[in-house]
Amino acid sequence: MLKNREVARATLENLYRIFTIPEAPDSTLGEIDRAITRDVAGFLQTHIVALERSLEEIEGDFSTSTIPEEPTFVSEYTEFVKQKLVAQSVHTAAPGFIGHMTSALPYFMLPLSRIMTALNQNLVKVETSKVFTPLERQVLAMLHRLVYLGDEAFYGRWIHNSQHALGAFCSGGTIANVTALWVARNRLFAPSETFNGIAREGLARSLKHLGCDGLAVLVSRRGHYSLGKAADLLGIGRDNLVTVETDEHNRIDLPQLRDACRRLGDENIRPLALVGIAGTTETGSVDPLDELADLAGELGCHYHVDAAWGGPTLFSERNRHLLDGIARADSVTLDAHKQLYVPMGAGMVVFRDPTALSAIEHHAAYILRRGSKDLGSHTLEGSRPGKALLVHAGLSIIGRKGYELLIDLGIERARSFAAMIRRQPDFELTSEPQLNILTYRYCPATVQQALQRASAEQRRQINLLLDQVNQLLQKDQREAGKTFVSRTRLRIPLSGAEQVTVLRVVLANPLTTDAILQSVLEEQCTIVLQQDIQALLQQVELLCAGVADLSVQLKTKAS
Amino acid sequence: MLKNREVARATLENLYRIFTIPEAPDSTLGEIDRAITRDVAGFLQTHIVALERSLEEIEGDFSTSTIPEEPTFVSEYTEFVKQKLVAQSVHTAAPGFIGHMTSALPYFMLPLSRIMTALNQNLVKVETSKVFTPLERQVLAMLHRLVYLGDEAFYGRWIHNSQHALGAFCSGGTIANVTALWVARNRLFAPSETFNGIAREGLARSLKHLGCDGLAVLVSRRGHYSLGKAADLLGIGRDNLVTVETDEHNRIDLPQLRDACRRLGDENIRPLALVGIAGTTETGSVDPLDELADLAGELGCHYHVDAAWGGPTLFSERNRHLLDGIARADSVTLDAHKQLYVPMGAGMVVFRDPTALSAIEHHAAYILRRGSKDLGSHTLEGSRPGKALLVHAGLSIIGRKGYELLIDLGIERARSFAAMIRRQPDFELTSEPQLNILTYRYCPATVQQALQRASAEQRRQINLLLDQVNQLLQKDQREAGKTFVSRTRLRIPLSGAEQVTVLRVVLANPLTTDAILQSVLEEQCTIVLQQDIQALLQQVELLCAGVADLSVQLKTKAS
Repeated sequence: MLKNREVARATLENLYRIFTIPEAPDSTLGEIDRAITRDVAGFLQTHIVALERSLEEIEGDFSTSTIPEEPTFVSEYTEFVKQKLVAQSVHTAAPGFIGHMTSALPYFMLPLSRIMTALNQNLVKVETSKVFTPLERQVLAMLHRLVYLGDEAFYGRWIHNSQHALGAFCSGGTIANVTALWVARNRLFAPSETFNGIAREGLARSLKHLGCDGLAVLVSRRGHYSLGKAADLLGIGRDNLVTVETDEHNRIDLPQLRDACRRLGDENIRPLALVGIAGTTETGSVDPLDELADLAGELGCHYHVDAAWGGPTLFSERNRHLLDGIARADSVTLDAHKQLYVPMGAGMVVFRDPTALSAIEHHAAYILRRGSKDLGSHTLEGSRPGKALLVHAGLSIIGRKGYELLIDLGIERARSFAAMIRRQPDFELTSEPQLNILTYRYCPATVQQALQRASAEQRRQINLLLDQVNQLLQKDQREAGKTFVSRTRLRIPLSGAEQVTVLRVVLANPLTTDAILQSVLEEQCTIVLQQDIQALLQQVELLCAGVADLSVQLKTKAS
Repeated sequence: MLKNREVARATLENLYRIFTIPEAPDSTLGEIDRAITRDVAGFLQTHIVALERSLEEIEGDFSTSTIPEEPTFVSEYTEFVKQKLVAQSVHTAAPGFIGHMTSALPYFMLPLSRIMTALNQNLVKVETSKVFTPLERQVLAMLHRLVYLGDEAFYGRWIHNSQHALGAFCSGGTIANVTALWVARNRLFAPSETFNGIAREGLARSLKHLGCDGLAVLVSRRGHYSLGKAADLLGIGRDNLVTVETDEHNRIDLPQLRDACRRLGDENIRPLALVGIAGTTETGSVDPLDELADLAGELGCHYHVDAAWGGPTLFSERNRHLLDGIARADSVTLDAHKQLYVPMGAGMVVFRDPTALSAIEHHAAYILRRGSKDLGSHTLEGSRPGKALLVHAGLSIIGRKGYELLIDLGIERARSFAAMIRRQPDFELTSEPQLNILTYRYCPATVQQALQRASAEQRRQINLLLDQVNQLLQKDQREAGKTFVSRTRLRIPLSGAEQVTVLRVVLANPLTTDAILQSVLEEQCTIVLQQDIQALLQQVELLCAGVADLSVQLKTKAS
């Protein structure tokens, strides 16, 4: 019995130890800490893309569903992390990893993240965040000013106002978009003398109160999928997320948008919000933000701009005109973990009207009391970490001019990659880069010519095969682990009403050079020589021969 | 002109540098990194609570709303962080900081967080997370098993199933609770032959389809404020969040709950979900989870348990019975950043039915394709960091037995603090700790006696003054910066229908000792000697004298 108690005491002492900061830098834990730090750096230097093993194989290391009964030594776990995790994760920071919106991070983000983690502040309330609350308010004001260009007096009045917040810091752009539409919905159904507001009464009674049969959110078909989630979550329904066709530059088609609005009127459905996109996820296109502002004004609806990707273009003197009209938006989403180069998990939404967030204000007895400066009273999320520190660090250390360089660099890089693709006869540029995102596909020159003359049905058949080619190409390149592009589906001029598979490239990593881009294309030229792809291309050729015959037939008929 | 270009090139080179990992440990950035690490450790060792300056004063350092034009040296910014941020943040890990749900963190969380940040994986899709996807799925399975005790075959089938997810990893308990109710709502209005489901058709048409006038969520009045947000967000309306009174142990009152359900029936409002709380935020009370499961069965509604705080009690052989019935819940919220001792920003919701999350499933053309293992197709959030690593590390390094020790320790500590409060005649224990949270207030012994005999109006007046006493007490203690308790408002036996201000203590930090708890009370005994509080207490005494008179009068009348 005594022995059991001794064992328990020993275990307890071990437990205390893991909660205690090592006193000396030469303590065991301190040593492990430094070893990990060195190793991560080593990994980042020597690997381009992590070890390629199939997901199914990897799952074998993660298939136990019972929580380990006994404790493990930190050193043992560290080995596991190095061998099973670090070596098999995706090197999202590699300059050849240009398929998604990830990039190398500024080095200072690592030690600062560590400080953030060590301080473990909770931004929901001042009592657990103190200085981090004014810090986050300042960051929101800075981004607000970047978008809305308010004057000193405006920010002097609102930046630290205890009743309001200029925006909400979120875990990402999805929560930011949801927050924007939540605010829009609650403002449309604000409390009045005869109505307690949607926050209290709910959506069904609110619609009855306003005498309409539904709400709609309008956006181009390139809108981010988070808008669908928002429509579902907020009770609006995905069928009422009206996705409007785009023009040949992947920007919302204004005449079709106006048609859609008219149809809504006929159905007694109220337009809740118009969403403009400043940098579509798939093509980086920017909607005509000024024209959308005009229309939102006419409709009297909320105007939201999803600038999760493109917002930081505002840093660039040369390119910020691309976002003209953004200052007329009622709300704007920005993602710091994208082009502000902050680690994953930092989104924001700012509101032109500094009182807008009151529409979702909430309180609790133990925190978020009225008149407190607790940021939690105006956010969808509750407890939140001090990520604002990292945004603040980026804005301070890189500065407006630094971000300008990064933005301009990405846009130039995209243009030069587009030029490279155009010079390769067997590739087809499927969307011209407006910002730093573009799409293209493998499509041999002869096939491009044949597609011009092909019938709709012939086009469909050829494109179906080309889809397979490009899917295989993307998959094989990813699995080879040297470079990475992503893929999506788009309507392109030669595809008619159908969508085709295209390769997608995001050029935000400042370490990505033209030489790397050249090697991406060269690798693709090698991959298409593989047997499975060649077999598909032979089928394409056969179909193209049919097109030639057809055109000959047509000519014959005509003559 | 040439000179300008040279300047631009130099700046660009500097920019590249900050994106490049320092090659040698003796590089400047490497040195700064280590200096920061040392300094954070220094701060955590030498300060108990950070420097106390008023928020208004601190705001002065964070009032510029323009983004700095020029870059700043990392070293300069580091100084700013040390002096203006670290020194003025709240030391949430201090063993005397027992007012909120924060604790010291196991030391290994810091280097592992650094790895997580450096790898910068994005869990929304396998392409940007690879091994982190099976890792997160494993963590979800482990927590699912902790709650639901499924067998090997069950987890073998579902853990890495590409069509489904056993739960969702979230930024915190709020998103977890919202996700649970979102799933509940969408399952109630699932698609059928004549109806496309609420996700597509929206709430108003769904209510019409089911022929009911509204939805209700039922929870005790101690329910977390995130449920109100969820009711608002999901279009249900806060008025339809039915908050039921609690019994004398702050647990939902079952007869009153049944009455509330009957009233809903009369109003043709459909109960969407019953929410049980396993560890209320304010008092740590656990609802009768088994009885609630029975009732949810009768009503045929979703049964959610918010175990954000108390979930890890399941680690303890001795205490897990307190949560009996939790395995009957349809969904359970757990917060890893609470009693799993993970840094801020890690919540989870697990579902008994492994197909439940299909109700909110979504896809996009470039990611989350059908049949992929992308976790993002079943989460409210989009891009998310690899926080699951830290949960995995805690479960592995601390182990089930380690967590058991921590849980048992906290519950024992709460009991011994309750005993200390009872021994102090001038303090009143206002809620008995069931887990490791308790509340009390300063209320001199004589006043406690007087309150027993006082009329309702006298009680009200005395309690109003005591509220002020306890508010000042809490504020002064916080500002003194040595220890910290929080405050909230509760109904207690001697307060009648009104709520009174009570001090709230959360005992989850393993470094908090009985000696520290004793010093918290001693400090409070000193603070109440201050003039402003004494003035209030004199008014209380006068009122109590009135009570004595009254009781004399009453006696006289009776005789």
